[in-house]
Amino acid sequence: MNLSSQYIDLIQEELRLLEIPESPENLYSPIGYFLNLKGKKIRPILTLLSAELFGENIKKAKHAALAIEIFHNFTLIHDDIMDEAPLRRGQQTVHEKWNTNIAILSGDVLMIKAYEQLALCPPAVLPDLITIFNKTAVEVCEGQQMDMDFETREEVNQEEYIQMIKLKTSVLLGCALEMGAIIAHTSKKNRLEIYQFGVNIGIAFQIQDDILDLYGDKEKVGKQVGGDILANKNTLLSILAGSLANDEQAKKLKLLKSEKDTNIKINGTKSIFDELGVKLKCLQIMQDYHQKALNHFNAVQSENQSLAILDVTQALMKREF
Amino acid sequence: MNLSSQYIDLIQEELRLLEIPESPENLYSPIGYFLNLKGKKIRPILTLLSAELFGENIKKAKHAALAIEIFHNFTLIHDDIMDEAPLRRGQQTVHEKWNTNIAILSGDVLMIKAYEQLALCPPAVLPDLITIFNKTAVEVCEGQQMDMDFETREEVNQEEYIQMIKLKTSVLLGCALEMGAIIAHTSKKNRLEIYQFGVNIGIAFQIQDDILDLYGDKEKVGKQVGGDILANKNTLLSILAGSLANDEQAKKLKLLKSEKDTNIKINGTKSIFDELGVKLKCLQIMQDYHQKALNHFNAVQSENQSLAILDVTQALMKREF
Repeated sequence: MNLSSQYIDLIQEELRLLEIPESPENLYSPIGYFLNLKGKKIRPILTLLSAELFGENIKKAKHAALAIEIFHNFTLIHDDIMDEAPLRRGQQTVHEKWNTNIAILSGDVLMIKAYEQLALCPPAVLPDLITIFNKTAVEVCEGQQMDMDFETREEVNQEEYIQMIKLKTSVLLGCALEMGAIIAHTSKKNRLEIYQFGVNIGIAFQIQDDILDLYGDKEKVGKQVGGDILANKNTLLSILAGSLANDEQAKKLKLLKSEKDTNIKINGTKSIFDELGVKLKCLQIMQDYHQKALNHFNAVQSENQSLAILDVTQALMKREF
Repeated sequence: MNLSSQYIDLIQEELRLLEIPESPENLYSPIGYFLNLKGKKIRPILTLLSAELFGENIKKAKHAALAIEIFHNFTLIHDDIMDEAPLRRGQQTVHEKWNTNIAILSGDVLMIKAYEQLALCPPAVLPDLITIFNKTAVEVCEGQQMDMDFETREEVNQEEYIQMIKLKTSVLLGCALEMGAIIAHTSKKNRLEIYQFGVNIGIAFQIQDDILDLYGDKEKVGKQVGGDILANKNTLLSILAGSLANDEQAKKLKLLKSEKDTNIKINGTKSIFDELGVKLKCLQIMQDYHQKALNHFNAVQSENQSLAILDVTQALMKREF
């Protein structure tokens, strides 16, 4: 993703230039800390690239890109509290490094800071930007709530699961792209197509994540293989397995949920997944969403033939299995 | 406050009309529950009355008033988590009735809903509204952080304390009033005066709260007399006492902080407060802020001689001691 390094630099630089006050220190230190954690900055880059695709100077999309990135960081700080996550981007999460109250409040301020950036966008397109931003922000919270609800539910079906990952993560990619398109004053059709491209590529991404968690290369994925199985997490793999299993397999899967031995738990579950061929089925579903995304991208009508957006998203879809 | 009952009704009705989705239930039930708790609705009423004072139809200020009220509710839900408060307006708090994660997330959605209302305000004044709203929203969070910081600090001086209550609660009153003024397209001077009126009346109000907590009539105040002393809370009373006490009194006050017997603790502290005359000094400071507020109100230039705003705020300043 060398191509996007100039965009990453621009976003990092803009984040550094944000005027974060010094006091109260317990409010602003966590914000400075979190905004400076290294990240791929996919979402703001998509906003910039989308504006460029539709013939606008990326500088005009700068504040919208920052709004998206800052909002994303707010959701991460609050999600990390809810998920009791100790690490984020290899560093301590805010509630771990400080405490939960500080994480709640500094997250709140970040959300307001996102709206501050939004308010700096070109006034002529501000109402449209606020509309899509608010809609998306609410959806992201709905997705997080569904995700939490699913943790304590026995049965989650494929449709509900896809809806959850769509809301929790994919709509923000669509929103990032559409905001760039809005700033470039492109057609309603183009706005819709680039939004749908983002949403569908996002769903494909998340499904890829589920597959990589179990079938990925430990070195390349950078985390415990089978972590989702260990945590008894609903994933597309486990949902498909649940719907395809015969009585005996279903019974085994259920027993494995309370298995204490890590290896038996992961390998036992994996071997039933293999019997049922759920990896291939997941890959197929992922590729369907990927193809759907590309169809929307191809339906975009732009004089500018820039494929930079595809380069960025394809790079994300090519992590090795 | 019969005068304002029509305004309360309008706000309640508008809150009822908000389209709160049904699903995810764990996200939206708490929001519906909290928005329907009875409250005085001071802040949105001030927005409506301010618009009216400057010659605008209150309906034009409806969405701004709702934005203020919804934002205020968001802060209450999150503050209640941080303060581990079991009750709000006589009912269970959201984190008690559901859980902390649900309270975090439904609070987040409420903040976004506040911005949704803001986006519905007249486009011509939207940039000004967003600017004051964002500035105030950040300040309210800063005030909450200062309040939390003060809990674990030995020494807090009067200036810091006033700054904390100003940020935590008073600026939102100023903002509510200024937003009404902005919508009515009044002069910059009027905007400033009505804002300062709100901020200063808010500070007077909070000081009154501190005094009432110890010197109020239990029946009329509706809570445990001396609750702040029991909780070893920094208040203007305790801060003044700390700065005026001689060595012996200071030693006694310190010992009383770890006193287990409720009566000894409250009465012992109160008798030192009485020796030092801190109640009178607090009343004087409160009246100074009250007078400062009235001076700003009197400096407002409006053809409309409506005193409705004063009626509302004076009623709040006349709770019995």
